[in-house]
Amino acid sequence: MSGIVVAVSPPDSAFMRACRNEPADRVPVWFMRQAGRALPEYRSARGTGSILQTVQHAELVAELTMQPVEHYGVDAAILFSDIVVPISAIGFGVDIEPGVGPVVSSPFRSSEDLRRLRPLEPEEDTPYVTEATRILSRELASSGIPLIGFAGAPFTLASYLIEGGPSRTFARTKSLMRSEPVLWADLVDALADISAASLRSQILAGAAAVQLFDSWAGALSPADYLSGALPATKKVFDAINDLGAPRILFGVGTGELLAQMASSGAEVIGVDWHVTLDAARKRVGPNRALQGNLDPAICLAPWDVVAHDAADALGRGGGVGHIFNLGHGVLPETDPATLERLVDLVHSVDPAELSSRMPPGDPR
Amino acid sequence: MSGIVVAVSPPDSAFMRACRNEPADRVPVWFMRQAGRALPEYRSARGTGSILQTVQHAELVAELTMQPVEHYGVDAAILFSDIVVPISAIGFGVDIEPGVGPVVSSPFRSSEDLRRLRPLEPEEDTPYVTEATRILSRELASSGIPLIGFAGAPFTLASYLIEGGPSRTFARTKSLMRSEPVLWADLVDALADISAASLRSQILAGAAAVQLFDSWAGALSPADYLSGALPATKKVFDAINDLGAPRILFGVGTGELLAQMASSGAEVIGVDWHVTLDAARKRVGPNRALQGNLDPAICLAPWDVVAHDAADALGRGGGVGHIFNLGHGVLPETDPATLERLVDLVHSVDPAELSSRMPPGDPR
Repeated sequence: MSGIVVAVSPPDSAFMRACRNEPADRVPVWFMRQAGRALPEYRSARGTGSILQTVQHAELVAELTMQPVEHYGVDAAILFSDIVVPISAIGFGVDIEPGVGPVVSSPFRSSEDLRRLRPLEPEEDTPYVTEATRILSRELASSGIPLIGFAGAPFTLASYLIEGGPSRTFARTKSLMRSEPVLWADLVDALADISAASLRSQILAGAAAVQLFDSWAGALSPADYLSGALPATKKVFDAINDLGAPRILFGVGTGELLAQMASSGAEVIGVDWHVTLDAARKRVGPNRALQGNLDPAICLAPWDVVAHDAADALGRGGGVGHIFNLGHGVLPETDPATLERLVDLVHSVDPAELSSRMPPGDPR
Repeated sequence: MSGIVVAVSPPDSAFMRACRNEPADRVPVWFMRQAGRALPEYRSARGTGSILQTVQHAELVAELTMQPVEHYGVDAAILFSDIVVPISAIGFGVDIEPGVGPVVSSPFRSSEDLRRLRPLEPEEDTPYVTEATRILSRELASSGIPLIGFAGAPFTLASYLIEGGPSRTFARTKSLMRSEPVLWADLVDALADISAASLRSQILAGAAAVQLFDSWAGALSPADYLSGALPATKKVFDAINDLGAPRILFGVGTGELLAQMASSGAEVIGVDWHVTLDAARKRVGPNRALQGNLDPAICLAPWDVVAHDAADALGRGGGVGHIFNLGHGVLPETDPATLERLVDLVHSVDPAELSSRMPPGDPR
């Protein structure tokens, strides 16, 4: 377990330096869904209620957020929450069914539904988010571990509101996007304002960086992403640009979209395992940092397989401007011991040696 | 409805010429899952039994296979069947649950299970496939419409056998592939033999071309595809190379794998909507034809959206060596009238005008 915490102030932490594409003494590592079912202490603290209830208890949120920091020794904490918290808080009518995901009782269908998306007032609508963020930034200050705030990207949020439940095809979403471009623009515009307001309040309450989850953007063709998703994502990032907190943009299956994502304003682009990090670097250009990209399914394989693929990702990441992470969230069946060893492995590597290495010639 | 059928012999049909990268008088078009729930005549003829029962009735299979040819006027028929038919026929214990997909009662776990994958004897194990193929090749001979036979690629078949049901992560499959490489090689080797035997018998019974469905290969990293999936796919194609029937290799989300897929031996590479066809052409090289790539979800949008994206795909396809198709199967809720208009649109285009056009500069 990498329990040693170096007391540096967040601006100089390995995570913050990597976000800014600056060399650091180690490659920082954290895991999407690091607080979650893989951790036994999570299962005992969290209970069985809806996550939308849990997030309203700021002290519990702080505890759940800290668990993986203490257990794994990761280089960043991420607020325990969900991307639908703000739209639920303004009363759109969304719940999270365990094992299913967000479910909307009355999905978004027409311009009438725009009225259900009033502006978010973070201090009144989601005071527990701000409170948890304040508690955590105080708790984390001494350790120098930055807190990551987050929100949903407009396209991915819209897909939940329109589909009403899980979808493999996003057919209703794509159809609305393409057949009613004005309504679509109004929808993602409203969602951009909501996500921006949430991120802004999280940063002001102490989040050192933010991640915008556009988890399902990879369902789109490059053309649909360009016209239907990217503008609203840019709007979110523009609205918090003045605060100076690094912005991470994440999605799954976005290999064809990486260059567009790099133009969103984000300082850091998330990459999944479909694209090697050296290939991704060419697509996003030299001025963006990368986050990724170990396949979370590989974490269920024996350790030597995990170690092999992690070493490969580190080599291709090049040691500078690389935040080590999985390509998607930790799978619930992951052995926490594997993630402990993974953090140790990432921390054991000298970034300077990685940056002097040429990327390997074959895809492994 | 494009009901006009030009009586040419299959080797000179637009579909067969496109497979060989030769100019033709039109861009050929067919749809994956063109026989299926979108067609009212399918729903009335097929009834409600398991598809594994339905495929055993050769006359009914021939009828279901012909329905979309007659309804839409597509340029190719594809045998109505399923990729798990051969492994079901040798008694592995697989069923297809409506709305779920293939379900394996006793999943593949160890080398013991290799004994459950005996070689396929097509004439004895799946005589109904051969019989339906013979009926169809006779029926289609006068119209000059080629029949496409098909099988599952070893990786995708293995994923069904190992996961036992639907999976989003393929965690068990990847874990077995990486942690037990010898067992994995034996498994995909056995599956390659089974698929090759099935394709061989379909070609000998009259199939003019074949498609290998590696539907879930896109779940793999480039490295895992190279070591774990491509060799067995090559084995299937090598085993039928002497028969001269064009070979199509299809998968979803395979943008990063296209160059590897082009080295499999396949003459035609399937492309989904994540990659534009002009970008795909660069990845597969000049000697391979492309098949694709309209997003099936877009077919649920109003006609002008469908027409716009179809015209874009045709332009990027370049008119030669392009078989128009969707990027995945027809969604059950698709209006057949949309597919009728789509066939008409594709057929209305002069391929010579497409090939003289430069690919557009922006992604749409």
